[in-house]
Amino acid sequence: MSKFKLRALAGALAMIGLSANTMAAQWQALPTKAPEPADNPSTPAKVELGRLLYLDPRLSSSGTVSCNSCHNVMAGGEDNRGGSVGVKGQVGGRSAPTVWNSAFNSVQFWDGRADSLEAQAKGPVTNPIEMGMKSWDDVVARLKEIPGYRQLFASAFGGTDAINVDNAAKAIAAYERTLITPNSPYDQYVNGKTAELTEQQVRGMNTFAEVGCASCHSGPAFNGPTQAQGTGFFMKFPTFPDAALEAKYGFEKDLGRADVTKNEADKHFYKVPTLRNIALTAPYFHNGKVMDLPTAVQVMGKTQLNKDLSEQQVNDIVAFLNALTGQFPSQAMPHLPDYPNKTFAYE
Amino acid sequence: MSKFKLRALAGALAMIGLSANTMAAQWQALPTKAPEPADNPSTPAKVELGRLLYLDPRLSSSGTVSCNSCHNVMAGGEDNRGGSVGVKGQVGGRSAPTVWNSAFNSVQFWDGRADSLEAQAKGPVTNPIEMGMKSWDDVVARLKEIPGYRQLFASAFGGTDAINVDNAAKAIAAYERTLITPNSPYDQYVNGKTAELTEQQVRGMNTFAEVGCASCHSGPAFNGPTQAQGTGFFMKFPTFPDAALEAKYGFEKDLGRADVTKNEADKHFYKVPTLRNIALTAPYFHNGKVMDLPTAVQVMGKTQLNKDLSEQQVNDIVAFLNALTGQFPSQAMPHLPDYPNKTFAYE
Repeated sequence: MSKFKLRALAGALAMIGLSANTMAAQWQALPTKAPEPADNPSTPAKVELGRLLYLDPRLSSSGTVSCNSCHNVMAGGEDNRGGSVGVKGQVGGRSAPTVWNSAFNSVQFWDGRADSLEAQAKGPVTNPIEMGMKSWDDVVARLKEIPGYRQLFASAFGGTDAINVDNAAKAIAAYERTLITPNSPYDQYVNGKTAELTEQQVRGMNTFAEVGCASCHSGPAFNGPTQAQGTGFFMKFPTFPDAALEAKYGFEKDLGRADVTKNEADKHFYKVPTLRNIALTAPYFHNGKVMDLPTAVQVMGKTQLNKDLSEQQVNDIVAFLNALTGQFPSQAMPHLPDYPNKTFAYE
Repeated sequence: MSKFKLRALAGALAMIGLSANTMAAQWQALPTKAPEPADNPSTPAKVELGRLLYLDPRLSSSGTVSCNSCHNVMAGGEDNRGGSVGVKGQVGGRSAPTVWNSAFNSVQFWDGRADSLEAQAKGPVTNPIEMGMKSWDDVVARLKEIPGYRQLFASAFGGTDAINVDNAAKAIAAYERTLITPNSPYDQYVNGKTAELTEQQVRGMNTFAEVGCASCHSGPAFNGPTQAQGTGFFMKFPTFPDAALEAKYGFEKDLGRADVTKNEADKHFYKVPTLRNIALTAPYFHNGKVMDLPTAVQVMGKTQLNKDLSEQQVNDIVAFLNALTGQFPSQAMPHLPDYPNKTFAYE
């Protein structure tokens, strides 16, 4: 091929690429309501029960760790740590994903091993380094001793014996489906209030699409194209391994989805995470080794797009990402159901 | 002295004793407002700032422990554990006292070493086994990096450089002064709604006074007579040591107030704790070794009054103590001030 032809091809590809990226970036506002599975329609009683369970440290072996400990709904929906801290001060290997807008993920956990919020909710409670309960039977036994929970489960699910793992998980999932942060500056911009984004943020939004971020971080939650619930949208991280970055951050120590599937082809694959409220969820990546957002953007350029983004590009994209911080719904602080006159034998 | 005279004397003493106890038990409802020190009048801005600081785990070295972790305002104001869990899974030696109505304590901590809520608030943050911060300078440095806190401290205290340890403690104390639980069945009874207590609870209330509990657990918060702020009302526990109880619970391993004063005479002395919401604060005593309230009442009879309370007496007193569970004020769940694009270097 002649030099001219090569250049023309490259130019054409660049144009197609650019066009494809811009097309991919069909900018969409965040829905204000999350999809619900047919077997777990949300009700106010379920949501309220789920909220209490979510905030209740009695679901852990030590009585000190609740879902909220690592997925803090008073903050960015996680704990701003590399590894989260479970019972007995144990530190996990992956950075807690945000609970905000997790209802828009088609699979849960970094490796997508849970096909629903319901399935996810069952995991950490009995994980020995997270909430440390020996079994869900033990959790259910505790809940049954707390008079308020007996009533709340009955109200949410009917019957006199409604306390079980499936109903607990359904209630927590129903609560999590309310944890949506709409009306970010970006959403308002998309809905026509163009003054809500600064000039730099609009430039960053275009850069985000042009350089290729939006190829994966697409859709209203910036976590990929719409998938059937339970079907993950996975990408390899790093796609373009870089020796210097690896030496610094050790991204490849974690096998990602291959840990679950035991399939060599899934090595270093992760669910594409949402970018909603990304400004509030440092540190970044599955291992939480990158402490700030500009560095994270730079790393992504290198590892996923094989590009050295300029300082201006990075700053513009960061400015845009800050426009994805939404409005957090107001919630009342509950009083957890009482367990009068005694306590559980915590570790 | 003749047998008759002895009996008459005993009878007279019993009557005097009963009368004295009943007098001591001047049943008082809980005030709905706590006293404020002259140098820290409460304002809505201070209370709101204090609430955020109280709930913010960024005040700990690990980013995981807030005041609320061990003094849970969604529950009985503590953690229902023997020893509380601080950073790195470290377990403290004393059971966390409840934050509810702590504004009515004239001194704070089990050993009364803090003469105000303000002084108390400064302690746990830099305690190596609690919140683990190396210094308040480090805390202040963090707070200064969080834009929302700069604004909130300015609103609460004025000036452009209002973030410091004293103001942080003042704000937390101002918030804690709002943590009052009035209108318990007992309070309503005292205020004339006599149907609010059951027959057993009234019987327990009388037994509580007659056997001598009210000698120490007097006043509206059941934590002793009114004292000047900073002046503690201390009692020895156990006053009547019992070998069997000691073998089982190890109460005397802790020197109590003598640990602070280094004064032999203060050995095993503790602040008389409030009985408000006592049904919700198991396990009991400074070391949290007694798991349920009936046992705690029985132990108190033995160690403080040298009495073997009957099962009926214990049950009646427990019924009465359950009438001290108040109404918890409704609070909104806040969104903690954002620290966008980065995080702190947590342990």
